[in-house]
Amino acid sequence: MTEDLPEVRALGAELSNWGRWGAQDERGTTNLITPELIVAAAGLIRTGQVFDLGIPLDAEGPQPGGGRQNPVRLMSENGQEQDLPGGLTWADDYVFMPLQAGSQYDSLAHVHYDGQLYNGHPGHEVTSKGAARCGIETQAKGIVGRGVLLDLARLRGVHWMDGGEVITPEDLEAAERAHGVTVGEGDILLIRTGWWPKFLHDRDPVAFTGNEPGLGLRCLPWLRERDVAVVGADNFAVEVVPGERPDSMFELHMVLIRDMGVTLAEILDLEELARSCAADGRYEFFYAGSPLKFTRAVGSPINPLAIK
Amino acid sequence: MTEDLPEVRALGAELSNWGRWGAQDERGTTNLITPELIVAAAGLIRTGQVFDLGIPLDAEGPQPGGGRQNPVRLMSENGQEQDLPGGLTWADDYVFMPLQAGSQYDSLAHVHYDGQLYNGHPGHEVTSKGAARCGIETQAKGIVGRGVLLDLARLRGVHWMDGGEVITPEDLEAAERAHGVTVGEGDILLIRTGWWPKFLHDRDPVAFTGNEPGLGLRCLPWLRERDVAVVGADNFAVEVVPGERPDSMFELHMVLIRDMGVTLAEILDLEELARSCAADGRYEFFYAGSPLKFTRAVGSPINPLAIK
Amino acid sequence: MTEDLPEVRALGAELSNWGRWGAQDERGTTNLITPELIVAAAGLIRTGQVFDLGIPLDAEGPQPGGGRQNPVRLMSENGQEQDLPGGLTWADDYVFMPLQAGSQYDSLAHVHYDGQLYNGHPGHEVTSKGAARCGIETQAKGIVGRGVLLDLARLRGVHWMDGGEVITPEDLEAAERAHGVTVGEGDILLIRTGWWPKFLHDRDPVAFTGNEPGLGLRCLPWLRERDVAVVGADNFAVEVVPGERPDSMFELHMVLIRDMGVTLAEILDLEELARSCAADGRYEFFYAGSPLKFTRAVGSPINPLAIK
Amino acid sequence: MTEDLPEVRALGAELSNWGRWGAQDERGTTNLITPELIVAAAGLIRTGQVFDLGIPLDAEGPQPGGGRQNPVRLMSENGQEQDLPGGLTWADDYVFMPLQAGSQYDSLAHVHYDGQLYNGHPGHEVTSKGAARCGIETQAKGIVGRGVLLDLARLRGVHWMDGGEVITPEDLEAAERAHGVTVGEGDILLIRTGWWPKFLHDRDPVAFTGNEPGLGLRCLPWLRERDVAVVGADNFAVEVVPGERPDSMFELHMVLIRDMGVTLAEILDLEELARSCAADGRYEFFYAGSPLKFTRAVGSPINPLAIK
Repeated sequence: MTEDLPEVRALGAELSNWGRWGAQDERGTTNLITPELIVAAAGLIRTGQVFDLGIPLDAEGPQPGGGRQNPVRLMSENGQEQDLPGGLTWADDYVFMPLQAGSQYDSLAHVHYDGQLYNGHPGHEVTSKGAARCGIETQAKGIVGRGVLLDLARLRGVHWMDGGEVITPEDLEAAERAHGVTVGEGDILLIRTGWWPKFLHDRDPVAFTGNEPGLGLRCLPWLRERDVAVVGADNFAVEVVPGERPDSMFELHMVLIRDMGVTLAEILDLEELARSCAADGRYEFFYAGSPLKFTRAVGSPINPLAIK
Repeated sequence: MTEDLPEVRALGAELSNWGRWGAQDERGTTNLITPELIVAAAGLIRTGQVFDLGIPLDAEGPQPGGGRQNPVRLMSENGQEQDLPGGLTWADDYVFMPLQAGSQYDSLAHVHYDGQLYNGHPGHEVTSKGAARCGIETQAKGIVGRGVLLDLARLRGVHWMDGGEVITPEDLEAAERAHGVTVGEGDILLIRTGWWPKFLHDRDPVAFTGNEPGLGLRCLPWLRERDVAVVGADNFAVEVVPGERPDSMFELHMVLIRDMGVTLAEILDLEELARSCAADGRYEFFYAGSPLKFTRAVGSPINPLAIK
Repeated sequence: MTEDLPEVRALGAELSNWGRWGAQDERGTTNLITPELIVAAAGLIRTGQVFDLGIPLDAEGPQPGGGRQNPVRLMSENGQEQDLPGGLTWADDYVFMPLQAGSQYDSLAHVHYDGQLYNGHPGHEVTSKGAARCGIETQAKGIVGRGVLLDLARLRGVHWMDGGEVITPEDLEAAERAHGVTVGEGDILLIRTGWWPKFLHDRDPVAFTGNEPGLGLRCLPWLRERDVAVVGADNFAVEVVPGERPDSMFELHMVLIRDMGVTLAEILDLEELARSCAADGRYEFFYAGSPLKFTRAVGSPINPLAIK
Repeated sequence: MTEDLPEVRALGAELSNWGRWGAQDERGTTNLITPELIVAAAGLIRTGQVFDLGIPLDAEGPQPGGGRQNPVRLMSENGQEQDLPGGLTWADDYVFMPLQAGSQYDSLAHVHYDGQLYNGHPGHEVTSKGAARCGIETQAKGIVGRGVLLDLARLRGVHWMDGGEVITPEDLEAAERAHGVTVGEGDILLIRTGWWPKFLHDRDPVAFTGNEPGLGLRCLPWLRERDVAVVGADNFAVEVVPGERPDSMFELHMVLIRDMGVTLAEILDLEELARSCAADGRYEFFYAGSPLKFTRAVGSPINPLAIK
């Protein structure tokens, strides 16, 4: 019930990371990924298996149109009309796409409220030209470190959780116990809800983006306590939709991005990785996922790699 | 002199990897990166330093217009006209860009000749809809393994090599000796010519793409002998431009991509990495660079990571 | 029944205009609009009323996505971040759109069969670079002359005709009699089926493009006999969909564009014009509708004007 | 000298049309084109000659990149990979372009100052979503009426006037006398400076947009007195560049668009029309030029027609 739920702004203030890495910081919790953690994570590479977590970028994607649409890729050259020395034939292509069309990072400039971005950077600096602060280029060194998968759909024994189904801290801890892993400081936490395989089954973009299972508000203190660096999921917004509070929307985005400074990874394909984790019982891995360096962008398409 | 240079088609036939990984293979030399090599490469992660090798994607990029132009990123939402429950403000953006605008992989469908792609796949299947075979999505698991930097500009003691200046196998071996590293099977080989810092100095896209220093034809047998998986460089085409033979153009592309099946990485920013390698004397590192999974695309923008 | 219907290729051959305006002609029946007819049409401008026949170009348009989508218009400047001498503030915008997204002309390169375009121009010259012949720029002087509206929906006393409902020559002649107008040489003929107001009522792009009422095959000899210059309609393809013959699709496009060389105008908004014609009993008017001069394009968005 | 020149804001206040057509008006001086004037203008159609005033839209256009670039048109279908019933082959294309890339109308939302658009509409309503007021769709019925050409380049006996060369009211009146025409209420006035043929000669986008000959500040009272509806030219900004006042830029845009409510037509190709006018001595004609109905857009590409 709403009355039991934390109020968004109070929660944001309580969990805030503003100032933690200095007044000028634009990176937020990815600061938690220390060189030492990266070196330690490298030790998780034991079999050399690679898992690509990005979804295909094409007209069959999960965007229903309107504000966001699927990528349109068109050939500018395919060899026709070429007559070059030595018989060279070459091909090139263009794309038009929302940077949020598929698997993506939300930069810390993607969401704000009350006129301020993460760390108090002014909201009015997100103009029609882009984000003067906290753009995705500030995460250019990628997000590299220990990845941990919590497979909530498997835990519940379902192909996919239901739209609107809330994940609680108790769920996360049950998954930790089931998987034999503990989420900790600087981790890249990946949540599997089954929402992406549901889309592959339905091929219904309106259904995919209409609602979704995801993290509930009460997970926020848990994520702050564990000091997670990044949260990713196989749905489009990480958090449950519709949200738990009738007086707001995307309230986890509000707190995670703006108050806590957490970079989110959305619309990941965790299927092959999840099968591997279930098979070998190892739910931790090396994660390497860099955004493209779009200057002043509020997000970037990604194809992160999990490596075991 | 041209007469001393190998003839392109003869060389292609001599160095061909067609059939080596089966008649249906679309990945070429990235097959050389075995799980064992990935595990071994993970051992190179010792300090946790991360280097992002992608260039910024914006209007200040190196494309002169015409066939290829710099990315155009535009905001679709910046919060204006939003009045949402709870005060959420959000921002989104779109991009229009050639997939070859900045740091990028050439898929094995990017170049062909005599009607055949790598491994004999039919050239006519590169249509206005894209590449039916050898598209960039076939490299979706990224390119992960041991990276080796050969810093030719440093070896020659120059800020940048000259346009048209040819790199020879002898140069590559001199760099190996100077750097204390040996290029081997499955390596991701990165060549630094200084052409990118020259662009940063000049900011002249016409000059940047007009010519460039790069690998000469005689490097091809060397690359085949070493069985390199990927060749990348800080110029726009890896190879020297203008090419050495007056009767052809981009002849290294012809052989590397179509005959040898080598994925190329172009327009990399190797500056920070090179400074680090010079400082610590370690010219090898873990490399993780995934393409975006554009279906049937002939290339992808990238921001690969080198991790020490 | 199909057996009563003309066979497409036989009909095309019978009605062909190939060679009629010379072997090099790329304009087809717009050649029929002589200067004399334009001067005569000017005499129809009697009240100075102007009707704009283009639909709005925005995200609410009739395209369901996939091959064609609605226009995406984005601001590149809106004044934010400007600080210019004298206080000037300016705004600019970009669009990404299929040239076929809304009200549009089909160029004579839009459709062909059996390897030949209109007038025998080779079909293989429509490459990934565009149309070497019969591109929309060949109609650059616009389409100016006498417009005639035949309001089939009104004739039938319906808000809109049904999807799949066939218009026959007898229908066209009944409309002529009802409207007191005779379609003749060089006319721009506009057919109102009610399909556009049905879209405005339903706002269902999938329904709009799934089928439609329109001209049947037997109208083709009639159009050739009358020597119409252009045929336009308020549906997306002028012709009935699904077509009358199970062994082909868009067969009127095949004959009209490729054999007869008729430029088509699609997805027009004829509502205000039709109300005016019904009110004043004048179903003829001056028509001025120019394509944008996209070089080698196979179509162009338009906003034609009818002037009374 | 600057001291002799009118001050921009004082001039704007003096020449203002705010309130003239009601407090809600968004169309400005195109209100001056009455039905009676349209009927009268139709009488100028005497020979049936049509002149298309739009420039080609392709990669060879006059935009140097940066904020504005030339259109990029790409094929989405050219027949490859199609295998349709009846042998139909079809082609489609997409475009990505600034609405200001070529021949265009500036909507009255294109320029403002001191926080107000034309007629006092609030400037802050030009957001990242477009113009809430005065968008180009408000001119949807096109701009139809009497066109008048004043050929300043011909008057001066030059192929083209020089960049920075100022046109004065005395020049306009000298042209009127030479051409035997008088500019009056509701006219669409076209100014030929030769800047477009200079571009065709030079093919230098940087030179084309770097400066230009055009109207000087002292023409503004003249245009207001004559009550012109639209001003068009063969340069990119109608007005002289650099402007006459060092303390401002594009000051004619400021007054014409924001204070007077005049729609501008830019980058027109007046060459063929000018030759005709010189040959037959008739510098007036019927003009029909509609914008595309881009919702909330601040401009539209155009291909206006002059008809004699």
